[in-house]
Amino acid sequence: MKVNNKSFSNISMAVIRRLPKYHRYLKDLLDKEVYRISSKELSKLIGFTASQIRQDLNCFGGFGQQGYGYNVEELYNEISRILGLDKTYKIIIIGAGNLGQAIANYTSFDKSGFELLALFDVNPKVIGMKIRDIPFRDADELEQFTLENKVDIAVISTPKEIAQSVVERLNTENVKAIWNFAPTDLKVPEDLIVENVHLSESLYTLSYLLNEREIKNNS
Amino acid sequence: MKVNNKSFSNISMAVIRRLPKYHRYLKDLLDKEVYRISSKELSKLIGFTASQIRQDLNCFGGFGQQGYGYNVEELYNEISRILGLDKTYKIIIIGAGNLGQAIANYTSFDKSGFELLALFDVNPKVIGMKIRDIPFRDADELEQFTLENKVDIAVISTPKEIAQSVVERLNTENVKAIWNFAPTDLKVPEDLIVENVHLSESLYTLSYLLNEREIKNNS
Repeated sequence: MKVNNKSFSNISMAVIRRLPKYHRYLKDLLDKEVYRISSKELSKLIGFTASQIRQDLNCFGGFGQQGYGYNVEELYNEISRILGLDKTYKIIIIGAGNLGQAIANYTSFDKSGFELLALFDVNPKVIGMKIRDIPFRDADELEQFTLENKVDIAVISTPKEIAQSVVERLNTENVKAIWNFAPTDLKVPEDLIVENVHLSESLYTLSYLLNEREIKNNS
Repeated sequence: MKVNNKSFSNISMAVIRRLPKYHRYLKDLLDKEVYRISSKELSKLIGFTASQIRQDLNCFGGFGQQGYGYNVEELYNEISRILGLDKTYKIIIIGAGNLGQAIANYTSFDKSGFELLALFDVNPKVIGMKIRDIPFRDADELEQFTLENKVDIAVISTPKEIAQSVVERLNTENVKAIWNFAPTDLKVPEDLIVENVHLSESLYTLSYLLNEREIKNNS
C-alpha cells in the first residue's frame, strides 16, 4: 500500500497531531524487535483507546489486518511518509543562546532529515563559533542569507521583543515555515506556515493544576 | 468579584489551555495602557471568535459588562489567580545542558512566582557552576535533596534514555509535578502531575504541513 505523494489534506489537525506519538511508540517497538501489534496492545502502551487507534489509522487507509494486527514496520514507514519524514528540510536558527543551541542539538540528534544550515545571533561572543561545523553567523547577514538560500524552516528563538523584527528581515520568498519559540504571536505573510511552541502555556497549565490540587486538598 | 481559593475543576482542559493566551494578550494591553476592551476587539487581537471569548470567560463568572466590555486589569488579575500565578512554585531542573539552562533563564525572566532552587547534572564540567546564584549540583544529590526539600515542579531536561531513571531517583513524596521535556512518556506515581513538552510532535507537525504544501503545489 503505497501512499507516496498522496495528499492527506482532508485529515483533521487533531489526528495529525497524534501521529508523532504513534511514530515514537512504533519506533520503540521496532527497537525492541516487536514486528506485529494489535490495536488493543498498542492502546495499552500509548494510552489512546483501541477504537481511537483504529479510527486514526483508518484515515490513511487500513493498515491493520483483522486477526493479525498491525505490521509495525510498515505502519512506522507509512506514518514517517505521511509526516514528510522521508524528505530533508533545511533549517536556520535565529537566536543562538541556550534555547537556540538546544534546538540545534535536538534537530541534529534526531537524524531524520533536518539539515541545519546556520545559526544567527547578535552576540559578538558567539558569532564565529560552530556547532558540529555549523557556523554561528552575524544576525546582520540574515537578509542576504535568505536571499541566496532556500530555507524550509526558520526557527525563532530570540527574545520576544525582537521576534517580529526577525520575521521582517527574512526574505520570505525563500522561507517556507517558521518554528516560533518566542512567547508572542507573529504577523507573517499569508502563505508562510507558522508553528508555535509557547512554553508559558505549558508552564501555566502546570501551575493551574498545582493550584487546583492544593485548593481541593485544603477544602 | 473575588474568586480566591475557589476551585474551577469543572472547567474543561481545553478552556484552561486557552487561558495563558488571554493572560499574555491582556498583559500586552496593560503594558500599552489599554484598560477596557470589548470581546469583539479582543477577538481581532487574539484570533478566537468573540462568542468563543465570551463563552470561555463566562466559565469563571461574568467578567464583562454589557455596553462596557471587559476591564482589562480586573480580567488579567482574575486569570492570573485562576492559573495559580499569585502563588510561588519551587522548581528544580534535572539535566542542565543547553535546554535545562534555557528553561532556568525562561522561568526566572518570567518573574511570576517560579523560584528555581537548583539544577542537577552529571557533567563534572558544569557541577559547581551557578546561574544567578543558583547552583548546579551533582545529580547524585538528587535523592537527598528531594528528601530534604519540598519541590513543586521537577523539570526533566535529560536525554530520553535516562529520564525514567531520574523519576525513580526523586523522592516523590516531596515532589508534586513533573515538567517533562524528554521525548518519552514517563511512568509516575498516580498522584504526580505530569505535563509534557514533546518538541518532536511540534516539529513533525511542521514537516507534515511542509510536505502537504509541496504535494499540493506539485499536483
